[in-house]
This record gives sequence, C-alpha cells and structure tokens, in this order.
Amino acid sequence: MAHISIIGSGNMGQAISGLVAKGGNTVELVTSSDTDKVVTGEIVVLAVPYASVAQIVADRGPQLAGKVVVDITNPVDFATFDGLTVAADGSAAAEIAAALPESRVVKAFNTNFAGTLVAGSVGDQPTTVLIAGDDADAKALLAAAVGAAGLRAIDAGGLKRARELEALGFLQITLAAGEKVSWAGGFAVAA
Amino acid sequence: MAHISIIGSGNMGQAISGLVAKGGNTVELVTSSDTDKVVTGEIVVLAVPYASVAQIVADRGPQLAGKVVVDITNPVDFATFDGLTVAADGSAAAEIAAALPESRVVKAFNTNFAGTLVAGSVGDQPTTVLIAGDDADAKALLAAAVGAAGLRAIDAGGLKRARELEALGFLQITLAAGEKVSWAGGFAVAA
Repeated sequence: MAHISIIGSGNMGQAISGLVAKGGNTVELVTSSDTDKVVTGEIVVLAVPYASVAQIVADRGPQLAGKVVVDITNPVDFATFDGLTVAADGSAAAEIAAALPESRVVKAFNTNFAGTLVAGSVGDQPTTVLIAGDDADAKALLAAAVGAAGLRAIDAGGLKRARELEALGFLQITLAAGEKVSWAGGFAVAA
Repeated sequence: MAHISIIGSGNMGQAISGLVAKGGNTVELVTSSDTDKVVTGEIVVLAVPYASVAQIVADRGPQLAGKVVVDITNPVDFATFDGLTVAADGSAAAEIAAALPESRVVKAFNTNFAGTLVAGSVGDQPTTVLIAGDDADAKALLAAAVGAAGLRAIDAGGLKRARELEALGFLQITLAAGEKVSWAGGFAVAA
C-alpha cells in the first residue's frame, strides 16, 4: 500500500485524492497555503497550477528528497493561449526535475481532465494516465496506485516525453476551451 | 463535390484514397515516382514520408499554387526515435508552408493510424481527423471530405498547432512501437 500526499485542493487535487482512496491507498491532502505541514507521502503530487510550483519547490525542496514527485501541470501561456511558457525543447517537468535533483520526478495526469479521473472513463475506454519519467520504480509505484483505482496507466517513456505530454495537454485544453470537445471527453487512449 | 489528388501509394495514401471515395468525392492517386503526372485536385495530399516531401515540393511547387496542400507527416528522427527532426518551436507543416507560399497548407491525418482511417472508428468513437491551418476555407473543404466519409473532423486551430499535432503523432507512434497501444487503436477523441 502506498501513502500519497497531494499538495493542492483544486479540482485536480480532489480528483486525484479520490482516485488514491478508491484504490485502497492512503492519501494526505494538503492545501498549497498550508506551508508548515510537512508532507509524509512516498509519492507527492504537486496538484497546483504551473505558476505555483516554484514556490512549493522553494519551500519544500529538502522534504521532497527521495520521494516520487508528480508534476501534473500544463504550463500554458494564458496571456496568449497560443503556446507554453517553457522552452520549446523543454518541459515543466524537466524544469522541476532540475530544481529537485534529489527527487524522482514523473510527469502524469496532465493529459487527464479532472472529470475523467472521477468518472474513470473517456468514451468506452478506461481513463488512461500517461506517465513519463526516468525512474522505472517511481513510474511503477504511481502506475500501481492508478491501476488499483480501475484506471489504466501507460508508461510513456523517459522524462523527455513530458514535452509531448505537455503538447498533448495544451492541445486538449485548447480544444475544450474552443468547445470542440467537452471537459468530460478529450483524448481517450484505445489500447 | 471535391476532387482530391493523393501523392503516395503507401498505407496512408491508400487509406486516405479510400476515405475520399467513400465520401463520394473523386480521387486521383499518384505514386511519388510518377513525377511527370500533373496533379489536378483542388486538394493535394502529400501522403509520403517527411523525407520525401522536399523533392515533391521542388518538383511540383508551381502546380501546387492555389491548391489546398495537406501535410500528413510525422518528422520522426528515426536514428534516435527520441524526438523530431524539425526545430523544437516549429513543425514540418510550417516548413512546407514556407516552401509553398502560394499554396494553402493544412496539417491533417498525422494523428491517425492508417488502420483507423479504414475502420472509421477508434474504440467507440468515430476516427477523428485533427486539422490545423491558417486558411479557414481550406480546412472546411478538407473537413467536408472527411465528414462525408463518416469520420469526424475537428478544427484544431491555426497552422501553429501543427507543432502540437506532430508531438501527438510522435507520441502515439512511440506508444504503438512500444506495444503500449495497438496500431488499430491509439488516441481517440471523445467529443
């Protein structure tokens, strides 16, 4: 059984917390303003907007050492809504990994709308969490928690693939914002 | 009714030809070696690998003027299988548009495996062709041909979104090559 901390109590933090509990793992939900609360999970999900990550990393870097840190962000440039704010050949996950060299950073959940994590399906497919990271054990630990909740986890490759996951997440957000897909739909993965 | 030329007779060229005919539009299938054959379609699909596009552009540039040119490529770096060969902030479609300033270039079909174009569905969803381009009429013309065949077309935005479509196409290819999804599956779009 895994113990998982979620930092952030927005719709994604709540959805991921529900998922963890549904899978029989234990969850600790911490608001991002609750900076004095030391997180105890072996997996820590940063369920906050990209713009809030830097402060969490600054505040909590040492306590995240050795842990699996899950980056769920889509670093959308909300001023233009026409691209991402990270380097074209980089990713938010790569930046976070560079800032947390003692942690095992994985990218996950950024291609899942919160509603699909709650519903457990997109179309006729189980909601699929694409996970990228350079540490196989870290990915397997997260995948087990996802699978225990009845969702599907797919190992999407090394952390370098976070670039493509963030492109996918951004594209999906633009499609939903443009009412081309619903926030309950989007990209399903048909195995 | 649209008249559509397909350059390239591989699995994608054949699948797109079948789609066009199924929708009641007329199709002209030209092999990429048949360089003397002037294409007559108002829409011309470059159904060839990315590496073959430059020669077609060099040979046929003037005859493509005024036409809707459809780029379906995924410019995967097959030496490393770890990225694309185009600039990180660019796309194959942007390169082709720059090389064909008199044509109306759209990106489409690069996120669809050939088998899903033939089958017409991915999971329980109609196969969805994501189309990016800067000319609304060009996108609408292609979308009509796709829709007539019973598939779904979604306008994914300006040609700049080809960057994200190519990231999605690349990711999907890596997942299929890694046997995480089948070549009959992959990303479905749930409206």
